[in-house]
Amino acid sequence: MRRTSFESMHCPLARAADTLGDSWNMLILREAFYGHSRFDEFQTELGIATNTLTRRLAELVEVGLLEKRLYSEKPQRYEYVLTPKGRDFRPVLLALLAWGNKHAMPKQQPVRLIDTLTGEPVELALIDQRTGKVIGPEHKVLRQTARPATAEYFAFDGEVSALSRP
Amino acid sequence: MRRTSFESMHCPLARAADTLGDSWNMLILREAFYGHSRFDEFQTELGIATNTLTRRLAELVEVGLLEKRLYSEKPQRYEYVLTPKGRDFRPVLLALLAWGNKHAMPKQQPVRLIDTLTGEPVELALIDQRTGKVIGPEHKVLRQTARPATAEYFAFDGEVSALSRP
Repeated sequence: MRRTSFESMHCPLARAADTLGDSWNMLILREAFYGHSRFDEFQTELGIATNTLTRRLAELVEVGLLEKRLYSEKPQRYEYVLTPKGRDFRPVLLALLAWGNKHAMPKQQPVRLIDTLTGEPVELALIDQRTGKVIGPEHKVLRQTARPATAEYFAFDGEVSALSRP
Repeated sequence: MRRTSFESMHCPLARAADTLGDSWNMLILREAFYGHSRFDEFQTELGIATNTLTRRLAELVEVGLLEKRLYSEKPQRYEYVLTPKGRDFRPVLLALLAWGNKHAMPKQQPVRLIDTLTGEPVELALIDQRTGKVIGPEHKVLRQTARPATAEYFAFDGEVSALSRP
């Protein structure tokens, strides 16, 4: 069963973090993005205990990030594939990857994002798609202060610093 | 003390996820980005137990995402502020926020990123800064297969799908 501590929080980031769960779930999603879908593939790649993997896969299905699909009738076998909701986590994982390359393994960078058309490494940046501008200090996070039913205005809750480019 | 299970993994995403820890840590970082720095501010905003908050702040200091600073001599009081390494998590949190707005709270969107110069909401996208292109199916994640000391070549480990735009 899922933790539910954050469900009452009126914040999409809190809900997203709660949906994603902990590091194991991120790594299972990573493997799903690498194209793995079967229980034994996840287990081999991650070196995760069987009961832990079983529980995590069930959680990820329950929150709608993975879909459990029958791929063999006899013997009955299931695979786990990303849903559209799960695929939408890709930017989060790529941003984490960029951070990890910069701060956790700066010299090695054993995993990289490259443009396969050119073979060049990619330098990630977050932009505002409407304007094409890189996210900077003029982009601030606003929180509605009123209740959902009556919320019509926004209030500042402090400033958010400029994006540190990956 | 920190979990250390992912430290041996040769993957920057795994290390980043491990550094970030669980959902509470993300929310503490969120509050730090909102400009909060004091123990009682985090506690008020998050409704988190004192001992949990104490432990999480110590963890975030230990991994270098927050810095503990003396701001009052008598009585001795400390604040917790984002380090440059911590600030670099901003794209990860913004990507999570965008996911949460789309999938966890699509109707309410109580927290949003806006361009304060224009007042317009921001539509986040990840681009390759070198080319300006939105990250698409031609951008693939590569993993080095050899050991760090000898790694000179890259191998595909499956395909990564197109970015789902937030």
